[in-house]
Order: sequence, then C-alpha cells, then structure tokens
Amino acid sequence: MKDELKSVLMAEMTWPEYAAALKDNPVVFLPTGALEQHGPHLPMGVDHLLPTAIARDIAEEVGGVVAAPVTYGYKSMTRSAGGPFFPGSTGLDGQTLSHIVRDIIRELVRHGARRICVLDGNYENLWFLNEGIDLAMREVGPTGLRVMCLQHWEFLTEETLGQVFPEGYPGIELEHAAVLETALMMHYYPQLVRFDLVPDNDAAAAPCYDVWPPRRDWVAPEGSLISAKGASPEKGALIAGQYRRDITAAVKREFYELG
Amino acid sequence: MKDELKSVLMAEMTWPEYAAALKDNPVVFLPTGALEQHGPHLPMGVDHLLPTAIARDIAEEVGGVVAAPVTYGYKSMTRSAGGPFFPGSTGLDGQTLSHIVRDIIRELVRHGARRICVLDGNYENLWFLNEGIDLAMREVGPTGLRVMCLQHWEFLTEETLGQVFPEGYPGIELEHAAVLETALMMHYYPQLVRFDLVPDNDAAAAPCYDVWPPRRDWVAPEGSLISAKGASPEKGALIAGQYRRDITAAVKREFYELG
Amino acid sequence: MKDELKSVLMAEMTWPEYAAALKDNPVVFLPTGALEQHGPHLPMGVDHLLPTAIARDIAEEVGGVVAAPVTYGYKSMTRSAGGPFFPGSTGLDGQTLSHIVRDIIRELVRHGARRICVLDGNYENLWFLNEGIDLAMREVGPTGLRVMCLQHWEFLTEETLGQVFPEGYPGIELEHAAVLETALMMHYYPQLVRFDLVPDNDAAAAPCYDVWPPRRDWVAPEGSLISAKGASPEKGALIAGQYRRDITAAVKREFYELG
Amino acid sequence: MKDELKSVLMAEMTWPEYAAALKDNPVVFLPTGALEQHGPHLPMGVDHLLPTAIARDIAEEVGGVVAAPVTYGYKSMTRSAGGPFFPGSTGLDGQTLSHIVRDIIRELVRHGARRICVLDGNYENLWFLNEGIDLAMREVGPTGLRVMCLQHWEFLTEETLGQVFPEGYPGIELEHAAVLETALMMHYYPQLVRFDLVPDNDAAAAPCYDVWPPRRDWVAPEGSLISAKGASPEKGALIAGQYRRDITAAVKREFYELG
Amino acid sequence: MKDELKSVLMAEMTWPEYAAALKDNPVVFLPTGALEQHGPHLPMGVDHLLPTAIARDIAEEVGGVVAAPVTYGYKSMTRSAGGPFFPGSTGLDGQTLSHIVRDIIRELVRHGARRICVLDGNYENLWFLNEGIDLAMREVGPTGLRVMCLQHWEFLTEETLGQVFPEGYPGIELEHAAVLETALMMHYYPQLVRFDLVPDNDAAAAPCYDVWPPRRDWVAPEGSLISAKGASPEKGALIAGQYRRDITAAVKREFYELG
Amino acid sequence: MKDELKSVLMAEMTWPEYAAALKDNPVVFLPTGALEQHGPHLPMGVDHLLPTAIARDIAEEVGGVVAAPVTYGYKSMTRSAGGPFFPGSTGLDGQTLSHIVRDIIRELVRHGARRICVLDGNYENLWFLNEGIDLAMREVGPTGLRVMCLQHWEFLTEETLGQVFPEGYPGIELEHAAVLETALMMHYYPQLVRFDLVPDNDAAAAPCYDVWPPRRDWVAPEGSLISAKGASPEKGALIAGQYRRDITAAVKREFYELG
Repeated sequence: MKDELKSVLMAEMTWPEYAAALKDNPVVFLPTGALEQHGPHLPMGVDHLLPTAIARDIAEEVGGVVAAPVTYGYKSMTRSAGGPFFPGSTGLDGQTLSHIVRDIIRELVRHGARRICVLDGNYENLWFLNEGIDLAMREVGPTGLRVMCLQHWEFLTEETLGQVFPEGYPGIELEHAAVLETALMMHYYPQLVRFDLVPDNDAAAAPCYDVWPPRRDWVAPEGSLISAKGASPEKGALIAGQYRRDITAAVKREFYELG
Repeated sequence: MKDELKSVLMAEMTWPEYAAALKDNPVVFLPTGALEQHGPHLPMGVDHLLPTAIARDIAEEVGGVVAAPVTYGYKSMTRSAGGPFFPGSTGLDGQTLSHIVRDIIRELVRHGARRICVLDGNYENLWFLNEGIDLAMREVGPTGLRVMCLQHWEFLTEETLGQVFPEGYPGIELEHAAVLETALMMHYYPQLVRFDLVPDNDAAAAPCYDVWPPRRDWVAPEGSLISAKGASPEKGALIAGQYRRDITAAVKREFYELG
Repeated sequence: MKDELKSVLMAEMTWPEYAAALKDNPVVFLPTGALEQHGPHLPMGVDHLLPTAIARDIAEEVGGVVAAPVTYGYKSMTRSAGGPFFPGSTGLDGQTLSHIVRDIIRELVRHGARRICVLDGNYENLWFLNEGIDLAMREVGPTGLRVMCLQHWEFLTEETLGQVFPEGYPGIELEHAAVLETALMMHYYPQLVRFDLVPDNDAAAAPCYDVWPPRRDWVAPEGSLISAKGASPEKGALIAGQYRRDITAAVKREFYELG
Repeated sequence: MKDELKSVLMAEMTWPEYAAALKDNPVVFLPTGALEQHGPHLPMGVDHLLPTAIARDIAEEVGGVVAAPVTYGYKSMTRSAGGPFFPGSTGLDGQTLSHIVRDIIRELVRHGARRICVLDGNYENLWFLNEGIDLAMREVGPTGLRVMCLQHWEFLTEETLGQVFPEGYPGIELEHAAVLETALMMHYYPQLVRFDLVPDNDAAAAPCYDVWPPRRDWVAPEGSLISAKGASPEKGALIAGQYRRDITAAVKREFYELG
Repeated sequence: MKDELKSVLMAEMTWPEYAAALKDNPVVFLPTGALEQHGPHLPMGVDHLLPTAIARDIAEEVGGVVAAPVTYGYKSMTRSAGGPFFPGSTGLDGQTLSHIVRDIIRELVRHGARRICVLDGNYENLWFLNEGIDLAMREVGPTGLRVMCLQHWEFLTEETLGQVFPEGYPGIELEHAAVLETALMMHYYPQLVRFDLVPDNDAAAAPCYDVWPPRRDWVAPEGSLISAKGASPEKGALIAGQYRRDITAAVKREFYELG
Repeated sequence: MKDELKSVLMAEMTWPEYAAALKDNPVVFLPTGALEQHGPHLPMGVDHLLPTAIARDIAEEVGGVVAAPVTYGYKSMTRSAGGPFFPGSTGLDGQTLSHIVRDIIRELVRHGARRICVLDGNYENLWFLNEGIDLAMREVGPTGLRVMCLQHWEFLTEETLGQVFPEGYPGIELEHAAVLETALMMHYYPQLVRFDLVPDNDAAAAPCYDVWPPRRDWVAPEGSLISAKGASPEKGALIAGQYRRDITAAVKREFYELG
C-alpha cells in the first residue's frame, strides 16, 4: 500500500517482508527496557523508547531488523533509578526477564536469524539479559549464532561527554532521567518531553552499597538523580549521531568483520 | 509542555501524572499480545497493537490508565495462527508469559492499583494469562484487588457479525489475519495495512485436535486462515464502536457497579 | 495366571508385557483429567475416569496401550466448571501439569514409544497439556516422535448431538456435569452415578470474560452448569460408540496413514 | 442410587458427600506411588495400587477420606527398583513430584482439610514428598494444618517379619517386587498377580552407592530384587491386618490424641 | 612459592595446576554437606568439613582433585538431625541443592572432567544430589561422563562398627552428632571439638514417619540423637583409615577397573 | 575445650554458641564468592576466601557472626574475569545463586537474625545476590529484617588507591587477579600465593559490550587482566585496614545508627 511501510520494525513488517529480510542473515536487534519513573519531565517508557529508536538508527545503517521491544525490565534499584518509591516503576523478577530473552532468542534462531544484538536501555537489566542469552546459547547449541549485548551509554566518548557537559561530567551513576536521557528523548521523541518540568534537584548521594528495605533519602523527591536542565535537542542529536557511528561500527566489526 | 501529552498510556505518562491518576483507583488496563505472522497484508504486531488501541478507547471512557503492552505472547498454534511455519511468529514459553503477568500485577498493586483489566489480543495467550493472574492473586493476598481478563472478540455481538459478514460469519476459529483483525487494523492503524496484498485464500480446514510436529497443510501458504477481502475501515470503526460501548459497560459493571 | 489380565492398561501390565507391546510401536494413550466437582450426581473423578475408559476403547481398536491416568488437572474456572466454590475441586498450578506431561512423554520416549496420544477429559487442561507436549518435543529432539492431543467432546458430530439433544444442543460451554458427561458415566461407570440426585438447575449465565476473585452467582448452587436430566445410558453408549469410530479413525490417520 | 457408593474415595464421591465429610475435619489420605516395573509377575501400578488400598483400610477405621492417588512418582533407582533398564518405569523429575504434592495440599487446605496423611508406596518418592509438604506448609501459613507422611513398610514389626520370612528377613533394601509387595498384591488385587511367573532370581547385590550411567548387572534380569516365591495371600492378609492396626494407631495418635 | 601449596583442593590450586591435573582425567570429588546443628560439642560445619577431609584423603590415594565444598545442604529433618528446633540449621530448598549440583557438574564437564564423585556428609541431601546428578547427565548428553555418589557412613564395615561400639551399634539412624561424627571430627579437626561438652543424653525415640509441624519431643534438648561419650580420636582415625581403604577401592573400581 | 574456639564463624560455632550470639541481634555476614581462575599465581578460591576473611574482620569489630561462605558464584564473564577460557571457573546459573541467597536469608531470619550483610567477592554475583535478597524480603514479610549487600572493592578510597598504585590506578575493570586481590591474598592467606608466578601481562583491552560466543583475545593468556607485580603484603594490610575501618563504619551506620 504505502512506501513508508518499508519499516525495519518487525512489529510493523509482514511476515513475507521479514522472511525476505532474513535471507541476508541480517542483524536482528532486540531493544530491551523498562516501564519506570524518569522524573517529572520524562515519560515512564524512556528505557524502552530510547533503545528502540537507537536500534532503528543502527538497523538502517547495517540493513538490520528491529524486533518488538521488551517493554518491561528488571526492578528499579534505589541508587540507580529511584527504587520502589515512585509509582509506575514496574519491575519483573530477574528470572522472568532472563526467560523472556532466552525465549525470544530461541525463536529468532528458529526463524533463521544468526546475528542478534540485544540493545538495552535499562541499567538494571544487564545481568539478567546476560543470563538469558547464556541460557539461549546453551539451548540452541552449535548453530553459528552470535549474540552481542550492549547498553547504549557505554559507547559515549570523552569527546561527546565534553560537549554535552561543558562544566564536567558528573558520572554515569547519576544519569537517570538526567541530561543524557533527556537530551536523547528531546531528539527522538520531543512530544513526550515536558522540559518545563525538569527539576532543579541536587545530585543524589547514595553510598556504595545497597540496603533492603531501601532508604528514601538516597534519591531526590523528584526521582531524577541529578538535574537535567542542561539537556537540549541539539545535544540529543549529537549523542544519537555518535551512537549511530560508533555502535554501527561495533556491530559491523562483531558480526561482519571478525566473523 | 504540550496538551496532547495528556496521554492515558503509562509509557507516555510521567510518574507524577500516574501518581495523580492512581488517587481515583482507576482501572489499569494491561494490553497483552504477540509478535506473530498475520498474513501478507498485516504487520506482525497486530496482536499487541489492537488491544493497546482498544484499551486506550475504553480507558478514555472510564478514566483509566493503559500500562505498556506485553509485546510477546504464547507460541502460535497451527490451527489458530499458523504455527511455526511462518518466520516472525515469536512465542514465549507458557511459564514466561504467566510470570510476566504475575510480576506486572504484583507491581501495579504495589503502586496502589486495585482494578486491573488484562485485555488480550492473542488467542493462544488466554490460559497463561489466567494462570499469571491466579498466581498474582495468591501472592498479593487480601488487598481488595479485582482483576478482569478478556479477549476482545468475545464481545462481538450477533448484530455486529451480521453487519460485518453479510454473507455469514465463518466462525471465530478462522479469524486470524482475517476480516475482523484486518478491519480493526484499517480503523486504528491504516498506515500499517497493505490491503492490496490481502490473499484470496480458501478457509483453513484443520481437524479438531493438535499434533506435534505440526502439519503444514493445516494452514494456507499465506498464513491467514481465511480471506480478509471483506474487511474495510468502516467495518473496523463499527467493531471498535461496539467494543467501546460493550467492553466499557462490562468494565464499569465489574469494577464499579458490582463492587 | 489369568487371561483377563491381558489388559491394555499399563498400570495392570507387567513390564515384559509392556516391552512386548512396544515392539510394534503402538500408540500409547495418556489419559489426563482432574479431581473436580461434577454436581451432586457425579463423582469427582469424572474427568480422569472418562478419558481412561475412552482411551481403553480406542486402544483396543488400534492395538494401543493406556498409560496410568493423570488424576489431577488444572484449576477449575468458574465459567466452565464452577471454580473454587465447591470443595473437592483440587487443581494443580499450570506449570505442574505441564511438567507432568513433559516428564511422562520423556519417559515413554525413553521406553521406545514414538506414537503418543494425550486424551484429555478436563476442559481447563488443554493449554498446559499443549505446553507440556511442546517442552517434551523440544527436549527429546529428532526421534521421530509424534504426539496427538485431543479433548473427547471435540469429536461430537452434529448427528450425535441431534440424537442426544432432541430439543437442541445448549452448547459445549454449559456441558459440565451435564447431559454428555452424565450419559457417558452411565455408560462406562453406572455404579458411580446417582441419577436420582441430578439437579434441575437452570443454565448458568456467565459473561464472556473472567474475573478474580470469581463471582459465586455465575454458577448454580449445585455445580452443574445445566441440568443433566436428559442423560441416559443409551445416550452414553451412543456417544461412546461414535467416539470409538471417529477417534479411532483420527488416531489411525495421524499415526499410521499420514506417517 | 446405590449404597455401595458410600465410598471413602474422593474420586468416587460427589462434592456434597465430600463437603459433608469435611465437617468433621477428617484425615484426608493422599496415596502416592509410581508407574514402575515390578518384575514379571506384578503389574506396573503396584506402587500406587497398594497405598490406595491401604489408605482405604485406614480411612475406614478413622472415618477418613482418600484423595485420588498420585499415579506417577520419582525416577526408579537401580539399587532399589531396577533403574532405567526396564521399559515401563516412568519417573517424574523431583521438582514435578514435589509440586504435585504442594499443589494438592494447598487445595485440600482450601477445602477446609486440616489433617492430611501422605501415604506412600514408592521408596524413591520420600524426599520429594517431604519437600512438597514443606513447601505447602510454608505457603499455607498458620492454619492449624497437620501433615503426616509415611511409607507403609516402615510399620512392619519384627513379629510380622518373623511370620512372613520364617527363614529370615533379607532386608527392606531387597524388597522390590519381592515377598512383601507380592503378598500384599495377592491380598488386595489377586486378579492382577501372575504368581506362576514369579522369578526364582538370586538376590541383587548392589554396592552402597550409586553411579551414573547405572550398571545393568546391579539388578536381576527379571527386575525383582529377590525372589517372591515365598509370598501368599495369607501373608498379604497378615501384613494388611498389621498395617490396619498399627498405621491406624499412629494416625489416631498424631491427629487426635497429641493434638 | 611454597611446596605445601601442592594441594588437591581446587580452591587452593591455580588454574594452570588444575589444567595440568585434568590432563590425566582425574576423579574430581565434590564434597557436599550442610550448615547444621551438631549438638553442643561439635561445630555446625561438620557435614561439609568431614566430606572435604575424607575427599582429600581419597583424592591423595587416587590422584584426584577436590572441588570446593558445597557448604549448605537440604533442610534438617527432626528424626535425623533435629529439625528446625536448633538455631543454626540452615537448609536449602530441594531444588536449590539439586541445581547447585547440576550446575557444578555441567561446569566440571566443560573443563574436561569425566570422572566425578559426589561425596556427601549430610544424610538429608541424598535424593536432591541424585536429582541434580540426573539433571546434569541428561543435560550434558553422551560425553562419557561417569558420576558416583556416596555418603561416607554407608562404607562402615561390621568390623569397624564392632571396634567403635564395643557395647553394640545403636544404628545409623541415631548417628547425628554422635560417636561416629564426633570421632571423625576429633581425628580431622580436633581444635573444633569441645569434648567436655558432649551431652549424656538418652537416645532419641522418634517414630517411623514424619509430621509437620514437627514435634519437639522427638529429639533431645541438646540436639545430638544419642550421646557421643564413646568417641575418641583413635576411633576417628580407625574410621578414617577404613574409609581411606574402602572408599578408595570403590572409587578405583568404578572409575578405573569397570570402565 | 579450647579458647581459640571462640570463633565468629558459624561453621566453627556450636549451635548453643550461635544461639547465645543471636540474643544480641548481631549482624550476620554472608560471604559470597566463586570458584574461578585467578591467574597463575592465585588460588581459584580467592573470591570466597577474601570476603570470608574480610567479614571475619568486620564481625570482630561489630560483634557479628559469619555464616559459611557460598563457595560458588555466577559464571565468569570474559571482560571481567576471563570467561569460559580457563578450566576451573565453575559458575552457577543466575537463578541457582539467587535461590541460594534467598534460602539462606529465609533460614537466618527463622533463627532470629534481623541484621544480615551479604559481603561479596565476585563481581559477576551482584545482581543475582540483589535478586535473591529481594525474593527473601518479599517472602519473609514484615519482620523488621534489614539486609545490606556490598562488594568490598567499592569501599576503596582515593587515598588507598593512591598508595597502592603510586603510578596511577588502572581502574576496577582490570582488577581481576591483579594488584588488589593479590595484595589482599598476600595479607590474609600468604601461603596460598605464588608470587613468583605473577605474570607480567599487558592490560586486557576488551570493548564496552559482551558477545557470545566470547572472544579469546579479550583476555590475556594468563587470565589476570593486568599484571599484579605491584602487589605486596603491606599493601594488602593497608587495604584490609581501610576496609576494617570503613566497612565497619558503614555496617554500624546502617544497622545501628540509622535504625
């Protein structure tokens, strides 16, 4: 019907389109995220919205396909995302998340996919993704499958950080609902950002360990770990551009160059 | 920032907006679906796209909130959705799906929600949703929680079916990627439908039982169980309208009138 | 010792008898059921007693073997079997039932069986049986195993229903502890039926969805969804005879003719 | 309809009969067993047939109820039951068995039962029954529930053994498909015993540990660990009578006298 | 650095030392135990300390390697170890223990080990070890792996028992924190035994079944099932010497002689 | 018997000693670690040996108790510990580790403990520890339990790092079997360190993501991520001293001061 339907998103593709794409053994991206508070200015879907958008960018670069995002992720921890103090943070048990990833990879492999890139947007997910991938690798056996798992902020370069934080980078551990995520949302989903509501909160000051029950005073009332005032769409575009270059390069290296 | 941001979708709401909504003990809808082949003319996300759209309609009627959709569902069975013969159908194990639902309900209850409506769009999901809800009920204990679980097509009335199928309703067991889903997609997501590619296939003729390994000849090559030629946006609007009336009425009855 | 010992029931066979039977690669039937209320006139074992009897009939026709019945099944749902309101309904969690079926199939395959027919008598079991079979298929790998899964009432023909319900078939959704099961019990296990206690209750009138906690008024006080007054041993014999013909034909077709 | 219907077997009772019985807080017996080789002369259901019969005896003495038997049990070990060398031995994974017991107890407690006696007939089951009971105790919480778990042969007295084995008791570790089980089967289910086929095999001579893969020469070709030639219906009656006295006494003591 | 570092304990070996040892396909011993009360005179680690020491002895004899001990085991039962009445008994769920064993075996096999001996020191562990081994065997497939599982006291000979118990052996069912374990601890870990605190308690007198909740009066206040007064380091050395001979012989037979 | 028996290690305490200690509601430390390659110079038990030693230090400071260490941990990842390339690294599945922690906490709480500190020595363990703690918190309910979870290196101060790495700290991501762990082992377990075998390898240079199957060239042949040449017992004592001060302070603050 329409040309704009030529999507790289599996959820928008028909099965014959996907079947055609599989012939080239494309990289299939699996965006994983969360439904989780992101301060008073960002929507709670940030952690699955961003990796979906980033995966789409990279998929366009490498001729890949983007599977439907995993919209729920592991439980928010107080130090990194505010913990259980904010209604809306909706976490899965670790095993549930690992099994989601294991099951999806098993099925993608059954379809014929052999290059899978899990692209994550929720810090707390990582080890349960790792475990799900490991369980899948063990289960599918020697098929030639290669899997890559990344969290996008790990690709940020000194150069990008220098431009985004001209007064100094406060560190990734504070970057929840802060400048980086806000800038990326302003770039990819401007209509979902309420920039006027960005809080001017101080940096959170949590210790180097966790406690249960969690302590409310480890995180600002607003839920963002540090103010996002410094964000702008231009900075978002800058970061997205660097991702597009560098994640693409890594994906190409792992799946095509190193074999 | 913008007024159109007043979304009922949790993934697009900020946590303070959600917290404010929770004060009225709203119905929280959980759309559940699948990533699964839907013939050559519909995108593979139909089963989570439709319940999300329907849930949004009902949520607007009853002042509810729509949680992020569960984008993956139970494995496609040959008789009802074509089985494993179509690349793209990406099924979870039963326990994985049950645990997703259990975990999400546990968290919604922790937020304060006490009225939850699981609105499903993938036939094969039902019993694993039931199980997930039962596990959650057992776990959360006596909180006053009420849960409703429905599959939208169960609400179709004789009258609607008479209008949609003037030459006679072939039966729900053939309605995969067929007239009902196609019409609803044309209504809600017209840009994702390739109506020119609707196949003219005969009705599938599967027996009344299942076999493993499944048999390829139980389903048409195209993947739709019967032709969707009779679909139209108008019929989609008709169905959506009836859903809006009747599902709303059922939701109100269960959560507000019967108490 | 005795000739009547030539049973088709595994639980009554010695291992050398079973070993001898396995040489012909027979169909091994696995009756699955429940321990669940069936109104004031039927015993709570109906759902495993009937499939065991039916499986014995079919096994005699096709030279098969009947494994010990799975005597417990999935939890009763209010709409289909009265739910949790009747002491005696003793349901397993979904995963437990799936694992029972997976484990038994794994073991039958280890014995050498390659033709397995799961013959179910409890409506709520179906999807957890499907899942157990799928898990077993995945686990045993390429062994040539074929599995068939059926619920006996799916084989009822229009002709049989016409004879059993001369005043019109009220529909399978009401047939719990009603005419069909009562007639079959009168045929197979007459000593276990208290026909004088058949209630004269009205048809249950449940909506098209489920709720938790369940509603007591969705099901008659007696537990049968509609009166079984119309049952008779003759009707039971009629149904059993049709099953014997048609299920046998399907079993032969799937395991012997289609290969 | 008939008086002989006054069964103590739940599977043969109607729900109102069971509901009436529950009013007195009766002991509910759960027979657990296996489908497993028992030599060339005994049927493979011995391990669930015997505890069902014994439980019925005790239930009649104490006004109890007998739930449907769990017909499958834990995997046969070579030293105690011949291991995987005999087609027909159909073992469940340990967790599956534990979950069956947990689920059934949870449901019996929901019915109102507070006195439950798991009566086992398969040596290998014990620890998975223990675990299932422990999981259920933890889950149901402080309800006043008491559970007893026994394996019938543990009640054999010196006196009984002296009468059954006038030439000396070879020890319980050889009593699989041997004199005790054969005599009990001749007493309870004479039509299922092929006494003419009792093998004259030597005693098995396994070491005091287990190995995987198991060794075939640890068990006689026939599958019985020692000859059952010495069995007779009279000895079976003797054992059954002692059980009836002593298990009844223990059940009364635990559930009624000690409180 | 030092010669005494030539340990057989994996936890004290470097990986190149272990890699070198693996070249000879050595027996890898896995000591399994518990953290559990052992009366007022023995430390709570007895059940993992003893099998570690015994395994080291045998490993030295056969050129084997001893993996790190599994320091926690299955839940204490009242009849065999005092049950939940003694603070310190710290039991794992059955599945947890089975999975520990399964996972470790899977990894040892991945390293190249093909001869594994699980050497247990906690009576209650046995069946969950069996299950873990069985799950691992199923998972690793046809690798030539052989596994042996033993509980050390099963190797005690009549002769040893005669010397240790000159006044008669009260039976293994009372030997918790009693003469055998105390003597072995005095031999292997004298500094951890408080012999002056050995209680003079009577033998426990539990029946032949289990109950939940457990009964406090089935076990002496001190936690040892019978007095350990008769223990001595010499008796410990005697037992350890017999183990060293006889377990070594069994290990050699199973792994080297029978092939 | 002996005074030096006054251990803080539960495995070396008798149950009455532990019971006496519990009266003061002490902090119970649970050391968690791994059995994993640590280069050619360190034993494979480093990750459970170190947290056990550190926990003993802190327990002495705060009057605490140290539970038996969990000797196995999560699977080694290539970037942080060399991955599957080194025989000896013996990883548990994530769920197994979470369940171990959940089970142990459940039991400690049953003993009466309400202050539990999980002290970890294996980087890869963290999230599965978090999950196990969360599962336990949910299960034990409102008991007043507080749990703290820490990885010791997180407490290293700038000052300590400055003294240990006079030429600059290469970063925690390279500190596997490197200066910090080697120094601590030289301090706590000098007899287990083969300092002469410390390799002079270059720093590993892995990218910022993971791949499956892992790449061998991401880690040096020796298994340590960077050379440990700079380690010394004095530096180990320095670190241990700082831990003793600062971890003690954090433990006191969380369990005693903040309440």
